[in-house]
Amino acid sequence: MRTVSELETLAGFSSGPEPGVTRVVFSQADRKARAWFKNLCRDAGLEIREDAVGNTFATWLGSEPQLPRVGTGSHIDAIPHSGKYDGTVGVLGGLEAIRTLQAAGFRPRRSIELLLFTSEEPTRFGIGCLGSRLLAGVLDPSAADEFKDREAKSLAELRAQAGFNGSLESVRLPAGHYHAFVELHIEQGPLLERNGIQLGIVTNIAAPASFRLTIAGEGGHAGAVLMPQRHDAFLAAAEIALAVEAAARSTGAIDTVATSGVCEIFPGAINSIPSRVKIEFDIRDTDIARRETVAEALHAASARMREKRGVSIEIETINSDAPATCDPAIIDTLKRAAEDASCSHSLMVSRAYHDSLFMSRIAPVAMLFIPCRAGVSHRPDEYASPEQIATGVRVLAQTLAHLANTQSS
Amino acid sequence: MRTVSELETLAGFSSGPEPGVTRVVFSQADRKARAWFKNLCRDAGLEIREDAVGNTFATWLGSEPQLPRVGTGSHIDAIPHSGKYDGTVGVLGGLEAIRTLQAAGFRPRRSIELLLFTSEEPTRFGIGCLGSRLLAGVLDPSAADEFKDREAKSLAELRAQAGFNGSLESVRLPAGHYHAFVELHIEQGPLLERNGIQLGIVTNIAAPASFRLTIAGEGGHAGAVLMPQRHDAFLAAAEIALAVEAAARSTGAIDTVATSGVCEIFPGAINSIPSRVKIEFDIRDTDIARRETVAEALHAASARMREKRGVSIEIETINSDAPATCDPAIIDTLKRAAEDASCSHSLMVSRAYHDSLFMSRIAPVAMLFIPCRAGVSHRPDEYASPEQIATGVRVLAQTLAHLANTQSS
Repeated sequence: MRTVSELETLAGFSSGPEPGVTRVVFSQADRKARAWFKNLCRDAGLEIREDAVGNTFATWLGSEPQLPRVGTGSHIDAIPHSGKYDGTVGVLGGLEAIRTLQAAGFRPRRSIELLLFTSEEPTRFGIGCLGSRLLAGVLDPSAADEFKDREAKSLAELRAQAGFNGSLESVRLPAGHYHAFVELHIEQGPLLERNGIQLGIVTNIAAPASFRLTIAGEGGHAGAVLMPQRHDAFLAAAEIALAVEAAARSTGAIDTVATSGVCEIFPGAINSIPSRVKIEFDIRDTDIARRETVAEALHAASARMREKRGVSIEIETINSDAPATCDPAIIDTLKRAAEDASCSHSLMVSRAYHDSLFMSRIAPVAMLFIPCRAGVSHRPDEYASPEQIATGVRVLAQTLAHLANTQSS
Repeated sequence: MRTVSELETLAGFSSGPEPGVTRVVFSQADRKARAWFKNLCRDAGLEIREDAVGNTFATWLGSEPQLPRVGTGSHIDAIPHSGKYDGTVGVLGGLEAIRTLQAAGFRPRRSIELLLFTSEEPTRFGIGCLGSRLLAGVLDPSAADEFKDREAKSLAELRAQAGFNGSLESVRLPAGHYHAFVELHIEQGPLLERNGIQLGIVTNIAAPASFRLTIAGEGGHAGAVLMPQRHDAFLAAAEIALAVEAAARSTGAIDTVATSGVCEIFPGAINSIPSRVKIEFDIRDTDIARRETVAEALHAASARMREKRGVSIEIETINSDAPATCDPAIIDTLKRAAEDASCSHSLMVSRAYHDSLFMSRIAPVAMLFIPCRAGVSHRPDEYASPEQIATGVRVLAQTLAHLANTQSS
């Protein structure tokens, strides 16, 4: 299958050691991969447009090009030492879906547009979905130009070096640009494989609210300060972490998850009472009100700790994106396409977030998942089989065809 | 006062930037400081002996040198960026006490021996009180010779380079070597200063039991793994830390303290469930049975977490020294000396541990504390005033004189 060999070629554009793939946005590997991808699109007769941040649109013009378009696509940037399938399946699979329709003699009424989003991964600038946030207008363009990478190079500088010029203001898409947007992606979870199901049709995309707490207590020698006199920053952090877990478990919904993956203690010696702790929380849900109850529990536990332990706690909101609900009409179209292709499918939630989360702010969206081995992602052993990819492409193609030619606007 | 200017000179033997003092055992700074100290002792007519690990004995021979001796002393090694008074006050103050008695025409019956202990600080070899442990025979000499520093140099190699040869077996002191041992030290806590008391007479030396827990759970993407499926190593650590705190607070004794000063999470990313945690505990008490109840609570909480959270927990005992009770007769002698000098004093507990903890295994011991500003220690701003030091030296001298010349053996 052509897409599988193209995925292998794309994996070769990597700046790290094999078998892992490392393709950070605007790196030489990323720039070479983009040039190669654009050639593939040109070979398929698509028109290329690149915006000021490097989001790339490859358009198959429809017979009524003034109509809102049908979009598909994903990203090709890859975190260090990751795999070959995350994002790339949606980009090269989207191209293959278009080529399949072309080969079948299909003529779209609405234009079909393949997107390559810039910097879905937060590796370089610390924020995920940079390109789609700017397309959706949910990120201040002048603030974004000031984002710095670890070498203190700004986005403004790096995008210019990569050949992407002009004001970031121009990136935002006009309202009504898309009739529908559908993203093909590997599941990055184990459910489809475990249940032997070929396709997942996403109904909701969860979004994280993330918080960084800086807890300042009072240090001292572990032998010298009596228990009632202590203001232990770590024990405050421990109580807050457990309170957040309890809140996430008690929303009554399986989709609520909360994680504390970072907890750093200062000074960090066995015989020193922790004087300062940085602890971070990631809270996700498909329902923003439920997610909010967990965030409230975090704030309430922090208030209790200030009182009980005499510590100060600063709470910084790193991130607070709203979850997305997928469009019922596109979901129906995906279901019908899966049934026409005799593929088993099930409705599911995306707990990871994707460019579609931001595209949902400006367009009806849905996502199509294919299984990946053992749910593994962001690792060199990430894998989806040629058959699984082919199934996703086939159903995506049918869906794009249907969305391009239905009457309803 | 001579001792104050000698403390300043000693602080000059440092390998780090001023104002902090850095004098790691067997470093060039430590070796120069030892040479300078031995000259001071020789000037005072004391006989010098160094053992195979560098413990240094400066002896003022008594008229009955065959009797068990009276010992005093402390350490001069200093952790990086620390102060001028920790340990050093007991060494140079001990020397000054001897010189004071000499100047007064005192003639000891028992020999009076000033000790400089090697490596009280755990900086280089990860274990505190190296010299006094070997003197007391509580550390296996051949194992000790294999201790490595961060550059993988062994104690055997480093002591030989510093000029200390011979088998470590020879370090152990014969039973009955000392009639009494008294250590002068800064309090390293705020109580004396806060209560306006000149001297603390130590009745008990607390000792730490310390534990390293390695908790292995299951990692995963913060968005992908549902709460009931998680085996979060950090939340297990948080529950154990809180259980240990609760146990330490409920022994009914103010002297019980427990601290978790180290908690390291792997992989340590905001959107990754902690798969592995290293957490360390330091539990101290003057009563070993009470300390044991807290250690039992740690084990019980770990067992609960294995069950409740499906994590594995390895518990390594880093340290489990018994606390020491000071000798009532020496305590009485110290009290009388303080009263004769019209100094306010109070009985107190040492929550930090000292070489005296190990000397207590082979001799009757006690400690004499002087205040230090705000209880600060192990920092460049550690401070005891000339008057406070002089008071300690005066009372130490009287105590040594009394212990050297009383009839009881």
